Amino acid sequence: MPDSIPVDSVGLVSPQFIHIDTPLSLESGRMLLQYDLVYETYGELNIQASNAVLICHALSGDHHAAGYHSLEDKRAGWWDNLIGPGKAIDTNLFFVVSLNNLGGCQGSTGPTSINPNTQKPYGPDFPIITVVDWVNSQAVLADKLGIRQWAAIVGGSLGGMQAIQWAISLPDRIRHALIIAAASKLSAQNIAFNEVARTAIKGDPDFHDGHYAEHNTAPRKGLGLARMIGHITYLSDEAMGKKFGRDLRHDSLNYDYDVEFQVESYLRYQSEIFAEHFDANTYLLMTKALDYFDPAKHFNDNLAETFAEIKAKCLVISFTTDWRFSPERSHDIVNALLSANKSVTYAEIEATQGHDAFLLPISRYHQIVGTYMKRIISEEES
Amino acid sequence: MPDSIPVDSVGLVSPQFIHIDTPLSLESGRMLLQYDLVYETYGELNIQASNAVLICHALSGDHHAAGYHSLEDKRAGWWDNLIGPGKAIDTNLFFVVSLNNLGGCQGSTGPTSINPNTQKPYGPDFPIITVVDWVNSQAVLADKLGIRQWAAIVGGSLGGMQAIQWAISLPDRIRHALIIAAASKLSAQNIAFNEVARTAIKGDPDFHDGHYAEHNTAPRKGLGLARMIGHITYLSDEAMGKKFGRDLRHDSLNYDYDVEFQVESYLRYQSEIFAEHFDANTYLLMTKALDYFDPAKHFNDNLAETFAEIKAKCLVISFTTDWRFSPERSHDIVNALLSANKSVTYAEIEATQGHDAFLLPISRYHQIVGTYMKRIISEEES
Repeated sequence: MPDSIPVDSVGLVSPQFIHIDTPLSLESGRMLLQYDLVYETYGELNIQASNAVLICHALSGDHHAAGYHSLEDKRAGWWDNLIGPGKAIDTNLFFVVSLNNLGGCQGSTGPTSINPNTQKPYGPDFPIITVVDWVNSQAVLADKLGIRQWAAIVGGSLGGMQAIQWAISLPDRIRHALIIAAASKLSAQNIAFNEVARTAIKGDPDFHDGHYAEHNTAPRKGLGLARMIGHITYLSDEAMGKKFGRDLRHDSLNYDYDVEFQVESYLRYQSEIFAEHFDANTYLLMTKALDYFDPAKHFNDNLAETFAEIKAKCLVISFTTDWRFSPERSHDIVNALLSANKSVTYAEIEATQGHDAFLLPISRYHQIVGTYMKRIISEEES
Repeated sequence: MPDSIPVDSVGLVSPQFIHIDTPLSLESGRMLLQYDLVYETYGELNIQASNAVLICHALSGDHHAAGYHSLEDKRAGWWDNLIGPGKAIDTNLFFVVSLNNLGGCQGSTGPTSINPNTQKPYGPDFPIITVVDWVNSQAVLADKLGIRQWAAIVGGSLGGMQAIQWAISLPDRIRHALIIAAASKLSAQNIAFNEVARTAIKGDPDFHDGHYAEHNTAPRKGLGLARMIGHITYLSDEAMGKKFGRDLRHDSLNYDYDVEFQVESYLRYQSEIFAEHFDANTYLLMTKALDYFDPAKHFNDNLAETFAEIKAKCLVISFTTDWRFSPERSHDIVNALLSANKSVTYAEIEATQGHDAFLLPISRYHQIVGTYMKRIISEEES
């Protein structure tokens, strides 16, 4: 429990649900006849409905981006340091919408949901969802909320890919894209790490080809292993070195196959917690969404051509020690936007924390986002 | 089968075995009462026994560094491009010794060997072996071969760590240390990747707490997964990108959880082959030997002090895109050697292939090793 709700917090928030019964055509060719989306909103939509901001989450994120669900809540939403009254994404100025993506496991329809055709959980039969599908489902939510055009769409990592896809797919519905610690597609190395994670999950004897729920179990070991690998790629070598170095778990070396170093113990603990709370089929789906994202594949791998119809102004941000999606990957996006004659602002933030930096309260980073967001309001007023 | 044995090959070679019944005191405090070592030699030991070169292998290497075991042999030894008549390590000039390290699974005593006390395979009861222990056992082999002092000890990666440890532990017995793509200790990130590999192996239901041989099985899935992770860290992002990019396995995307990209298929195949031929307990042991290597721990983490008693001249080589043991890690070694007023030559090789570069026939790299090795002979003669 927070001692008291901080004054710059959006305060107590409640998730909202919406049921959509308009079928959604998926990039895979399959169809989702109906689905639920869970979302939260912070701030007030103005009369012109011109101040809406969409937050897109990354691999393991959800709709709970800011505030607290109850006074007993130990932790605020995952992007609480960025979103709130007076914060970089100022809820005194903006109406912020944050949803759990389709295929997720925190309330929106996904592998853990009941398949209306079978009355059993979808499990592995839930269709593969891509970034394009997320954009289309988010557009349906925008319609329901009366938002014709987003003032801004903001996302880090896989969230940044959604901001890019919005700008490409629905250019009239987004005025600004904030693309943070993202890439225009995965590299072979990125895909390789995802494949290792999937192999770990699928190789767990409790996976049961994805039908683990029917067996009243879950592939926790495999999912934990997948998370450990992910975790390493989210942190920089430098950050891990600073945090753990070669510090020992016990006073001296034991020369056995148990944990010797703090970093091992930390990874084990974090991954066990994660595996208790996250769905393995959703994890698989999210890694696939990452792998498949490659908007330039429809434009002969020419990213500038891919961006030709974009109307949104873009803010691209990268972090110096991010080796998952390095600054060079942001340069690719920026250079293609420039080649396509688009409006783009770029900031490369000095940060030791690796990819995870996008979630952290780094002052120059938050200043840049805050200044950019304020400029959106001035544009609006001028 | 090679069409014919190439003229610059050491040709057909046979492994030799030696049984040691002098007990070996291990760094862990345990004792190995007796053990076998398997090794190969190439070239001739001169009368002064002054031209001997020791090759130290890395995580999954063995004694078969050069030549062929038979005319049916499809592949030469693992460092055949470096070792042979007229090659960088010229077997017309040097007597080259290459052994399988203690704890290995290719013939030297290790977890797959029969424990004389139980008449069953050691399995997980085989003691943890460290780099210090390898140096001590290699010194016993040197004694048996009549080699009081090595002209050079050469190793890449974990092999380079053995060359470093020789120079520190037995300064009178080594004239030159060739330390290639190595580090003076693992970083937290390196340890973290090893811990993921170990977790994968130990989590395989066929692991049986390491006693899988008694169950007539082996944790192939877990070992394969460990190897996949290792494999990614051996290659550079650039090398993987060049080799695979986002090339698809099939003509088009299938939008399912099976393999879509060539890089996934390659990793799966390579890891399956590896898991058929390598012992999981040995893999665990080798990752632990890496983790434990940290000679400066006995010298208040001061690497220059650690190197104070070294008499060997050192050649340190790193590769630009190696992110497992980056050039900065070699700089640490070089700077400490310089601080300790030792003779050191350093070369940083432009190479796209990442850590694996040390195994590849990169001409500038081989020229530097060859020139250095020839200088050893001139020194000897002058």
